[in-house]
Amino acid sequence: MPNLYVVLTHYPVVNKSGNIITSAVTNLDLHDISRAVKTYGVKSLYVATPLKDQQVLAQRIIAHWTDGAGSTLNPARRRALETIKVITSIADAVDDIRDMENIYPKTVATSARKYPSNISYQKFRSLLAGGMPHLLIFGTAWGLEEQFISQADYVLEPIGGDSDYNHLSVRSAAAIILDRLAGRYK
Amino acid sequence: MPNLYVVLTHYPVVNKSGNIITSAVTNLDLHDISRAVKTYGVKSLYVATPLKDQQVLAQRIIAHWTDGAGSTLNPARRRALETIKVITSIADAVDDIRDMENIYPKTVATSARKYPSNISYQKFRSLLAGGMPHLLIFGTAWGLEEQFISQADYVLEPIGGDSDYNHLSVRSAAAIILDRLAGRYK
Repeated sequence: MPNLYVVLTHYPVVNKSGNIITSAVTNLDLHDISRAVKTYGVKSLYVATPLKDQQVLAQRIIAHWTDGAGSTLNPARRRALETIKVITSIADAVDDIRDMENIYPKTVATSARKYPSNISYQKFRSLLAGGMPHLLIFGTAWGLEEQFISQADYVLEPIGGDSDYNHLSVRSAAAIILDRLAGRYK
Repeated sequence: MPNLYVVLTHYPVVNKSGNIITSAVTNLDLHDISRAVKTYGVKSLYVATPLKDQQVLAQRIIAHWTDGAGSTLNPARRRALETIKVITSIADAVDDIRDMENIYPKTVATSARKYPSNISYQKFRSLLAGGMPHLLIFGTAWGLEEQFISQADYVLEPIGGDSDYNHLSVRSAAAIILDRLAGRYK
């Protein structure tokens, strides 16, 4: 199991015009990404939003499946959503990991754009093999804001594909990236 | 570009109790899977349902982004949703591919369960490298029905992961499988 944490953040992200926004929490993001996180043995999924009403909404969705009617109806869904911690900002995730691991995690930003400083999946796998904690950061909407990306310890190579089309949902991107980091298959 | 087609089917699939059902079309399935299909150069995404009202619903979602307000608002979404063909059954997809390719495609079923006849990702990539058309089949709800799976030409190895948890959404599973078949990265 990799010493890996994932955060899905709703701020600071950009909209289609490149303006910095706070995006809304999307129900299926929580479901799909927590299920992928659980599949690949990621330690926690943080969901970050500075908006209190959005934090309450996220908690209500999670509680339905972890404590409410959904928990007995669908235990597999419960196990996935239990991995989620709702927080205000990415700094909260960093602090939470430091409290558990006694060391600050390295932060790894994701983007659909290329950066000169990109690290490859191979490089990231070798970093994880070293055992130190890493926090992989996904932005909602049109992705993480530029200045935020430049402040991360690493920026992961974009997914790319077999075409010039590069517009995956954050749900699909998270699934693919976790598979590239921790998938085992021939 | 692989000679690959994908079908997302809403029948015959099973519910949590293992009963055969026709599931409902899910808006985000169309968006997420068409975007992944476009990213990896898959030729078409078929969406199969025997229910006429569900076919109409799927067509309406697609038309909003290909002909309606969404087509100018978000051209990237248009390009993805344009790859979708709404059909009644998987047999329609097979016939459509035969009409275009002058040969019947080989069918490849997916399942979260293991089968003695599973083919590996490596094997499937080598089949695609041969250039013959293949139709990759995803089931919604709790997955494709057993008898249907046994009739496919091949059954692809399950995704697995780094844990005992094996409950990905069909959106995540499709993204991961297409990346394993056609992704290029170090």
